[in-house]
Amino acid sequence: MAKKNSSYKKKVALPPGSLVHVGKASGTEVRLTVIAYDASQYYHTVIQDLSEVDAYAQRAAVTWLNIEGLHDTRLLEAIGNKHSIHPLTLEDILNTNQRPKADFFDEYVYFVLKMIRYDNVRKALDTEQISLVLLPNMVITFQEHPGDVLDPLRQRLEKAKGRVRHESADFLFYSIIDVIIDHYFVCLEDMGEEIEGLEAQALENPVPGLVPSLQHIKRDLLIMRKGVWPLREQITALLREEHPIIQASTAIYLRDLYDHTIAIIDTVESFRDMTFGLLDVYLSSLSNRMNEVMKVLTIIATIFIPLTFIAGIYGMNFQHMPELGMKWAYPVTLGVCAVIAGAMLVFFRRKHWL
Amino acid sequence: MAKKNSSYKKKVALPPGSLVHVGKASGTEVRLTVIAYDASQYYHTVIQDLSEVDAYAQRAAVTWLNIEGLHDTRLLEAIGNKHSIHPLTLEDILNTNQRPKADFFDEYVYFVLKMIRYDNVRKALDTEQISLVLLPNMVITFQEHPGDVLDPLRQRLEKAKGRVRHESADFLFYSIIDVIIDHYFVCLEDMGEEIEGLEAQALENPVPGLVPSLQHIKRDLLIMRKGVWPLREQITALLREEHPIIQASTAIYLRDLYDHTIAIIDTVESFRDMTFGLLDVYLSSLSNRMNEVMKVLTIIATIFIPLTFIAGIYGMNFQHMPELGMKWAYPVTLGVCAVIAGAMLVFFRRKHWL
Amino acid sequence: MAKKNSSYKKKVALPPGSLVHVGKASGTEVRLTVIAYDASQYYHTVIQDLSEVDAYAQRAAVTWLNIEGLHDTRLLEAIGNKHSIHPLTLEDILNTNQRPKADFFDEYVYFVLKMIRYDNVRKALDTEQISLVLLPNMVITFQEHPGDVLDPLRQRLEKAKGRVRHESADFLFYSIIDVIIDHYFVCLEDMGEEIEGLEAQALENPVPGLVPSLQHIKRDLLIMRKGVWPLREQITALLREEHPIIQASTAIYLRDLYDHTIAIIDTVESFRDMTFGLLDVYLSSLSNRMNEVMKVLTIIATIFIPLTFIAGIYGMNFQHMPELGMKWAYPVTLGVCAVIAGAMLVFFRRKHWL
Amino acid sequence: MAKKNSSYKKKVALPPGSLVHVGKASGTEVRLTVIAYDASQYYHTVIQDLSEVDAYAQRAAVTWLNIEGLHDTRLLEAIGNKHSIHPLTLEDILNTNQRPKADFFDEYVYFVLKMIRYDNVRKALDTEQISLVLLPNMVITFQEHPGDVLDPLRQRLEKAKGRVRHESADFLFYSIIDVIIDHYFVCLEDMGEEIEGLEAQALENPVPGLVPSLQHIKRDLLIMRKGVWPLREQITALLREEHPIIQASTAIYLRDLYDHTIAIIDTVESFRDMTFGLLDVYLSSLSNRMNEVMKVLTIIATIFIPLTFIAGIYGMNFQHMPELGMKWAYPVTLGVCAVIAGAMLVFFRRKHWL
Amino acid sequence: MAKKNSSYKKKVALPPGSLVHVGKASGTEVRLTVIAYDASQYYHTVIQDLSEVDAYAQRAAVTWLNIEGLHDTRLLEAIGNKHSIHPLTLEDILNTNQRPKADFFDEYVYFVLKMIRYDNVRKALDTEQISLVLLPNMVITFQEHPGDVLDPLRQRLEKAKGRVRHESADFLFYSIIDVIIDHYFVCLEDMGEEIEGLEAQALENPVPGLVPSLQHIKRDLLIMRKGVWPLREQITALLREEHPIIQASTAIYLRDLYDHTIAIIDTVESFRDMTFGLLDVYLSSLSNRMNEVMKVLTIIATIFIPLTFIAGIYGMNFQHMPELGMKWAYPVTLGVCAVIAGAMLVFFRRKHWL
Repeated sequence: MAKKNSSYKKKVALPPGSLVHVGKASGTEVRLTVIAYDASQYYHTVIQDLSEVDAYAQRAAVTWLNIEGLHDTRLLEAIGNKHSIHPLTLEDILNTNQRPKADFFDEYVYFVLKMIRYDNVRKALDTEQISLVLLPNMVITFQEHPGDVLDPLRQRLEKAKGRVRHESADFLFYSIIDVIIDHYFVCLEDMGEEIEGLEAQALENPVPGLVPSLQHIKRDLLIMRKGVWPLREQITALLREEHPIIQASTAIYLRDLYDHTIAIIDTVESFRDMTFGLLDVYLSSLSNRMNEVMKVLTIIATIFIPLTFIAGIYGMNFQHMPELGMKWAYPVTLGVCAVIAGAMLVFFRRKHWL
Repeated sequence: MAKKNSSYKKKVALPPGSLVHVGKASGTEVRLTVIAYDASQYYHTVIQDLSEVDAYAQRAAVTWLNIEGLHDTRLLEAIGNKHSIHPLTLEDILNTNQRPKADFFDEYVYFVLKMIRYDNVRKALDTEQISLVLLPNMVITFQEHPGDVLDPLRQRLEKAKGRVRHESADFLFYSIIDVIIDHYFVCLEDMGEEIEGLEAQALENPVPGLVPSLQHIKRDLLIMRKGVWPLREQITALLREEHPIIQASTAIYLRDLYDHTIAIIDTVESFRDMTFGLLDVYLSSLSNRMNEVMKVLTIIATIFIPLTFIAGIYGMNFQHMPELGMKWAYPVTLGVCAVIAGAMLVFFRRKHWL
Repeated sequence: MAKKNSSYKKKVALPPGSLVHVGKASGTEVRLTVIAYDASQYYHTVIQDLSEVDAYAQRAAVTWLNIEGLHDTRLLEAIGNKHSIHPLTLEDILNTNQRPKADFFDEYVYFVLKMIRYDNVRKALDTEQISLVLLPNMVITFQEHPGDVLDPLRQRLEKAKGRVRHESADFLFYSIIDVIIDHYFVCLEDMGEEIEGLEAQALENPVPGLVPSLQHIKRDLLIMRKGVWPLREQITALLREEHPIIQASTAIYLRDLYDHTIAIIDTVESFRDMTFGLLDVYLSSLSNRMNEVMKVLTIIATIFIPLTFIAGIYGMNFQHMPELGMKWAYPVTLGVCAVIAGAMLVFFRRKHWL
Repeated sequence: MAKKNSSYKKKVALPPGSLVHVGKASGTEVRLTVIAYDASQYYHTVIQDLSEVDAYAQRAAVTWLNIEGLHDTRLLEAIGNKHSIHPLTLEDILNTNQRPKADFFDEYVYFVLKMIRYDNVRKALDTEQISLVLLPNMVITFQEHPGDVLDPLRQRLEKAKGRVRHESADFLFYSIIDVIIDHYFVCLEDMGEEIEGLEAQALENPVPGLVPSLQHIKRDLLIMRKGVWPLREQITALLREEHPIIQASTAIYLRDLYDHTIAIIDTVESFRDMTFGLLDVYLSSLSNRMNEVMKVLTIIATIFIPLTFIAGIYGMNFQHMPELGMKWAYPVTLGVCAVIAGAMLVFFRRKHWL
Repeated sequence: MAKKNSSYKKKVALPPGSLVHVGKASGTEVRLTVIAYDASQYYHTVIQDLSEVDAYAQRAAVTWLNIEGLHDTRLLEAIGNKHSIHPLTLEDILNTNQRPKADFFDEYVYFVLKMIRYDNVRKALDTEQISLVLLPNMVITFQEHPGDVLDPLRQRLEKAKGRVRHESADFLFYSIIDVIIDHYFVCLEDMGEEIEGLEAQALENPVPGLVPSLQHIKRDLLIMRKGVWPLREQITALLREEHPIIQASTAIYLRDLYDHTIAIIDTVESFRDMTFGLLDVYLSSLSNRMNEVMKVLTIIATIFIPLTFIAGIYGMNFQHMPELGMKWAYPVTLGVCAVIAGAMLVFFRRKHWL
């Protein structure tokens, strides 16, 4: 988490509204993709220059401009000038530590949220900030890195499945948010499986390696939570604001989105509840083990220490030890030892240590 | 929990409003049952085809169509078309991870909640989603699996007990929800007994097997909670909405339902309070045991280790050890040992270790 | 707690409004007591038949009918018919798992709460549900078992102390609730003393028997809490509703009641705070003990185990052991042992183990 | 806490509005002190009889009657009659378990709060209830015991420092509350120092005596909290009520008081946060110690137990033990022992136990 | 924390509105700095006397007077008189335990908050109170000590970066608060790194020194929290109040500030969540170690104690011990010992102790 903030010290020295990319530069080129469509046509191209967008925007009803990579601040300024986007919005797009929020301006609606993926190999969450700008006939999305969770939507657009090809830009705007939020369920499913695995392990095989995994998933849940809680009120804001750019018919879908958000919050909270107890479960398993270890030690030591003392007695070299000369002394001693050991075992069984 | 979500990855790729059954296919046939009645007549039949419903609906004042099994999406679409049910509602019926909620449309009221049973053998909750659609003279219920908790209501209908045969469809709608929620009390009773059992065991006989049981019941309480908390506001919604299909005379019963929901929430929270402390109680019992084990070990070891050393001294083979030749050396040594052991015992008794 | 619900399974099968006594039948006869009074006269009799009430009700300004025992459902129905009490109210009277609540009907006000006594012998709370029905000139109270906390009020009525004999039925209604709630303070006082006792014990003498007592009082506090929290809003409801049957002059007393309820809630929460930490205090005392035990074991074992080894060395039977024949070997060996033991003691003192 | 309630059982038997002093009788005489002043004059006398107050009240603009000791209920009744104070207010003055509250009557304003002092010797809080009755030109204060925290105010009055001598009775009323609440900061400062001391001790020298001190300060914080939390809303009530007796110019000072209350609540909550973790810190220090003890035991036992076994082998008296006769057997055995011990030490160092 | 309050006992004796510096006198001289600017000019000088300010204030549009050191109360009174600042405001400036707050007066707006720096050497927070008074064309800031986090703003002013040189005093007022709050992110970044370091250490190398560090950072988070939580509502107050001195165009920047505050609160809460669990993680690591130690002890003791007993048996000096004379007795005994040790090892491996 702290890593992400790492250019803060640099940013602090700048006036508000300055365009500085807070985040790791992804190293690759900035990539611009245009998807333009209406009920009858569909285009999908990677463009080299911002000016190419206009051609598509004129031909089709809805245009979706996707920008991967945020380090080219001049490009951002160009987009900002073209669509009269407020400097503070541009600053929010670049500052990748944004809380999810909806901002309403006369010409556009700005929405920012986290795109979350669960990396099954590293068993960790990947989060990336995605910003959406909804203009009258266009949606512009800004992503930090190449690759996203929006492919299902792209396929739906291409194959003209569902309503999206028949609707205006606000429905695309909704659909993008919907696909991102739906992917949270996939993440939660994976995390749920890992939590269950950890729980099983905590109960049956409390290896120390479990604790770091537990810490890891707790942190992932914190990230998830920070990404999801604010969504609730921000989607309500989308519903309440009644911005002219969002049509009334889209509201019922936004309400559906709201329901999904609540369901995700519920699940995240359940998972937190489940993980909170797990360290205690692990410690109790460990205590059980320790207890078992202690019992074995105690039983063995308690039986043999007194017997060893008896053997020690008759190993003494005093000249006047009448027992030493007695004929049955040896077997009697062994017998006494056996009786003592037996009595101890009975005592331990009574204590339920065996 | 995660298991139930397992077709999410598949679903994510589809547009909102797509009918996909998220849940385990129950394997059996979809079963349609019709109960139709008014004050004077009562029918109860299993039908083969949706079209058979109409005959009953015309004859009797109220018709209850119950559908067991959700995997036949074409049947659902047919019902949806016939009664103009919104595609998002149909999607909610199929998505068995719904949060309890009430949705109001012009033609109908949709209510979804969890039917919860406690399996006394497995000591675990069985949850199943049940969706209710209240139409002017009809209630349609959608269940995932065969078998439910509604038999008491069916008997009441058949034997014409209570008001239900004299009332309209909204009272049936209320009665179904009421029977389901009443069954929560039965579950809580069973869970309460198990919690008390676990508590007694944690105090008296802290076996390791207790921890998984505890985890299990905690998870069950989480499930219960997720199923009950949202009910509170959703029943309030039913009361507040004043949908024309719900008569004013039913409101007092809905308020009663609200009281029940609050009582269930109270009990679930109490149970959570009780279970939260139980692991600590278990650990304290375990600590007690460990303490007792340690004391025994310490007493035995502390008494005999010094004595063994004394015996070891006189077991040495030095040629010049004057004590060895003394006549009373052996009994004196034994006496010294007895005195040391006695002093130790006194010391332990003073420390309250005995 | 679960025990009380034990006839739920039976009740679930019945329509709402059915009169079933959920609770343990007290075994004894139902007892009807009438207290009738005004400023100048006072009657107190046990009656055999409901019809006898009328004679008193006509003679005196205020009549208080107290019913002990709820298993005679026909009697309840008779009362219900006579005073037009709603079936759902009668059901609430019988269902002894009610949350405290106030219900307002045109003809009467219904109030239900818990009568709580602390049994100093069993060190446990006794709770009993008491229902009050306030009619224009009459208060009817329904109790589960014989015996109650209302005797102070009865004495006040008989001896005409305070305002109650000069006021109408709503003041009696208030006074009954007031006496019951005042008794909560007595319970809390007793519980407070027990908590302090447990705390002292946890600090000074952490016997295992403490944990069950702690669990017990925690559960009692849960019961207390469940009984008191809802009272707050229900008394507010009494204040807000302005039902014609409750006179404006009684409102200031109800506000006083409200203050008491808040004070009780405060105390219950403080007690919960105090008990929550007690198990940890107990465990810390136990850890202290364990630590002390471990130190003794470690000191004894650490001192004597090396010495025993030295003695073992010279107990070996090798033929070529030059030390064995040396004249000062024995005393030197003893001296070495003493030096080692002394060094160990110095080491332990440095570590503050002694 | 429970001690203070100890006459509840007696009080329960009395009607509401009865004057019973719930609290320990202070043993001493009731003391009445009058301070009367305006901008030009100042009187301060102990009076013997209530009637003497009038003389001062006529001469000066503002009169402050302070009553120490609550056991003379007839005096209270006399004051009540003289100034038409409601019986429920008088009851509240006597019941020293009041929650802080403001009550508004036509003729006067009643305010009750806790006067809290920190006894640095006993390391404990002393709380005492103080009731204020604000009349048009008079403030009457009721304290339980002699001695209070109001001396700074008395000096200010005497030396005519600040505005108080120029203002009316409501400013005196505010000033008294202000001085009491300001003293909370002094208490918190002392408690803060003790908490820091405990923390340092928990980290460095975890003696068992720390736990009772910790419990003690936790309870003190609970008392503090119970005394402060309700003040917040009660001072808001003073601000909101706009009672004619409180002048508009005093409002800004009350708002300042409100800010102080919030600051105290913040500090109390911080302290609670800090103390909650301290027991765990103590336990972790204890665990560290235990760990260290265990390591020493393990190292010594693990090294010498095998060596003792080897010595035991060659202490056996078998006739056919070829090693016994070998010339280098003894030094070789000693060497083997040294090698084993050395190997163990290396192993322990690798495990970071040394 | 308690240290800072240390002149409270003295202050309590004074009337409200008294100017007493609560805090450590910084020892150095009070330093007055003037920065005056408009779009075309910029002055930055240290002045010796308050009267010098006027010259600058007349020349430039906006003047920023910064005062370092609060112990010169006469200077404060002079400023108060000159700009008609209310005595309670002056008292707030001096009382350096202020909660962040905004106060609105006809002539000015008062804002107080904490300037927080993270000292990377001491690994601790430095907090200092900074008060801002916004007058029509002037901002006066009061700091306790020399040195602050405002240099980035001063550079921006000097180099005329951003909008600030073109705006009026309210924008300067906003900019100062903005720079201070932005520095909180820098602190959080440093703290985040330390928390991660502690977590890594708790998992891998649980040294006792970790616990004090953990306590330290917890306390820092408490301080941070106390400084940030109230900011949220106070910035809302700035937005809501619509004071004529704050222009509408500044509101959007204040909303941005509000978003930052929320983000800081989120992060502080996440950090608290993360630190709360760390002590448990540390204890679990410690338990793991203890467990490992115990296993080694148990394995060694359990194997060798019985073997030592066997050796002890044959070390006894009885005359009639037939085994002693047998030829193969010695190797057989050694063999038996080896078999016992082997069996034990198998047993331990089965128990997963090896």
